[in-house]
Amino acid sequence: MKFKINQTQLSKAINIVAKAVSTKTTMEILKGIYFEIEDNNLVLTTNNLELGIQTSVPCEVYEGGKIVIEAKIISDIIRKMPNDTIHFQSVEDTDFIELRCKNSKFNIKYLKCDDFPMPAYIDERTFVRLDAQDFKDLVLKTGYAISNNNPNPVYMSHFFKVEKDEFVMFSIDGFRFSFMKKRFEESSFDEKKLILKGNTLIDIAKTIEDSQESIKFSYDDKHICIIIDNTIITSNLIVGNFLDYESIIPQAPTSTAKIKLSDLKSAVERVSLLSNNKLIKFESKDFMMNITSRNDQIGDANEIVDIELNGENFTIAFNCDYILDAMKYIDDEYLIMNVINSVSPCTITPESNEDYKNVVLPVRIR
Amino acid sequence: MKFKINQTQLSKAINIVAKAVSTKTTMEILKGIYFEIEDNNLVLTTNNLELGIQTSVPCEVYEGGKIVIEAKIISDIIRKMPNDTIHFQSVEDTDFIELRCKNSKFNIKYLKCDDFPMPAYIDERTFVRLDAQDFKDLVLKTGYAISNNNPNPVYMSHFFKVEKDEFVMFSIDGFRFSFMKKRFEESSFDEKKLILKGNTLIDIAKTIEDSQESIKFSYDDKHICIIIDNTIITSNLIVGNFLDYESIIPQAPTSTAKIKLSDLKSAVERVSLLSNNKLIKFESKDFMMNITSRNDQIGDANEIVDIELNGENFTIAFNCDYILDAMKYIDDEYLIMNVINSVSPCTITPESNEDYKNVVLPVRIR
Repeated sequence: MKFKINQTQLSKAINIVAKAVSTKTTMEILKGIYFEIEDNNLVLTTNNLELGIQTSVPCEVYEGGKIVIEAKIISDIIRKMPNDTIHFQSVEDTDFIELRCKNSKFNIKYLKCDDFPMPAYIDERTFVRLDAQDFKDLVLKTGYAISNNNPNPVYMSHFFKVEKDEFVMFSIDGFRFSFMKKRFEESSFDEKKLILKGNTLIDIAKTIEDSQESIKFSYDDKHICIIIDNTIITSNLIVGNFLDYESIIPQAPTSTAKIKLSDLKSAVERVSLLSNNKLIKFESKDFMMNITSRNDQIGDANEIVDIELNGENFTIAFNCDYILDAMKYIDDEYLIMNVINSVSPCTITPESNEDYKNVVLPVRIR
Repeated sequence: MKFKINQTQLSKAINIVAKAVSTKTTMEILKGIYFEIEDNNLVLTTNNLELGIQTSVPCEVYEGGKIVIEAKIISDIIRKMPNDTIHFQSVEDTDFIELRCKNSKFNIKYLKCDDFPMPAYIDERTFVRLDAQDFKDLVLKTGYAISNNNPNPVYMSHFFKVEKDEFVMFSIDGFRFSFMKKRFEESSFDEKKLILKGNTLIDIAKTIEDSQESIKFSYDDKHICIIIDNTIITSNLIVGNFLDYESIIPQAPTSTAKIKLSDLKSAVERVSLLSNNKLIKFESKDFMMNITSRNDQIGDANEIVDIELNGENFTIAFNCDYILDAMKYIDDEYLIMNVINSVSPCTITPESNEDYKNVVLPVRIR
């Protein structure tokens, strides 16, 4: 194996694939990055058995080959190299690869690549182009409600239904539920219900840069696959029961309050500072809402925000973290709070988008 | 107690005094900020018994008074208040103070201030004006060599000798030593040797903003005091033996090497990635230096940097962290490495300033 490559491009590519490197594993090979020469490209692959990432960088090839190098050491070295050409060459009859760049010379042990588990392949013809920013929006705005540690796998999953040109995505952790529906004009899928474990999709969505216009999306029975430029990300689906999300969305509120997002957010943030067990109370009084908390050791807090109320006055209490999370991804100027009664789930939506719903269970007040 | 005050100004002042609040103490009063009305100012004071800070903010006073409020809660609340006028008023016959700002109302428990330990007072006539940036430089460039956990108090102290217009400052942790001498034109002190515990002076120096032109400095037998604008910082001196620093500075090198700082820094950073026990080796070869390291599990690294050598070729090895620290605060383009032999301390200085010396003990090579 012998090639030369640009330091900045390689460093960027390593950063991309590093996300699917296993750090906590006894399988040494999963801590590595698979390097392979294909035509005039270096193809880098990582796979932690749940998520696989592959990307490529143009390089000048003298001799092909494939090896695995420990991700941490190679990424540290490449990142600290000068912005210049790096020469890679495997040293004959040893398991070392030599890296040279200007006045630097490194000999690094590599691993044989035979048992490296390559990510699954999905037929490229099944891919559909989606708007990148819309996809990112959909994933990030629903993903916050996934639990990180819950014995119930439902509460640790991201649910995703595709049907023709409509994507429905949601997650739930037992105390709150986040739901979003979006149309992707040019796509056309058969109905399919997909379940992904934990934050995989969020991690992928975060790698989508703001300048990215479109991505390609596909799935088979066991995986979803997302292509962002020349990077291919493959994630395992999990087997489980798809939640009947329509039954969870609260129907017919008795009161709706329209509130300025920035006012509510800063009021809740302040009141939270004095809450006992994070409990804060909302009491509507016609055209305003009192938000209060009390801490026996420190004191109490009272905030007033203007509201536009439809329906009856209400009193309801929440865990302040959940109400702040529910507001976090709303980017409208106003939000709508839909209340049924003090013990039923409350729905928070942006004023102008009914297809994005954040549902929070209230806390019972004594 | 009743006054009104600007949120931004108060928040800034709380940030300043918060540095001297005790967080780990069983004395509740040391977790607090002392609020006192003086003329048309709110004076804030904190004291952790080693360091005391006092600053003031103009306010509109309706009624004087003094109270102590827990630092954490009041700083959180004030920081999150809108940028507007905050009204403070103690609630009669209770130990609560009421804060109002726009639509927010907070009642916060306060503590009686009788047992609050006020920082020591140093007669204002003894103060001398110093260039703020020079002082900051002096403190930060020597302070890195203070140990954070060493049973020997010498290794956990900042040493400071003032004499007429010359300030000498140094610290040592047993493995390296940092020394700097500076003239302050307008000052004139009798000779005095001061010892300060740990990083106090560094914490103070870091609060000096780049726009600050001068500070005022003074000391008595037990304290030093620094005035930055309307903030007064008082720190306890510790009793101990002042180190004979002149005997520690290595004399008469057999070799000196002039090296470009940026070249050396990045070469050492890269080589460090492959070091066993952080050991890296320097070998001069007339007009260049080989810097090498070896890690049995991973491989080896070799870097070449250009040098201008005076004297004999040398081989010497260091803990890479110490050599990187010694370079950290040098801002010349070139540095000078003064080597006696492979077992004697090596001195690193900026090319253009012999008054700043960083001394590092080598590691013996087998």
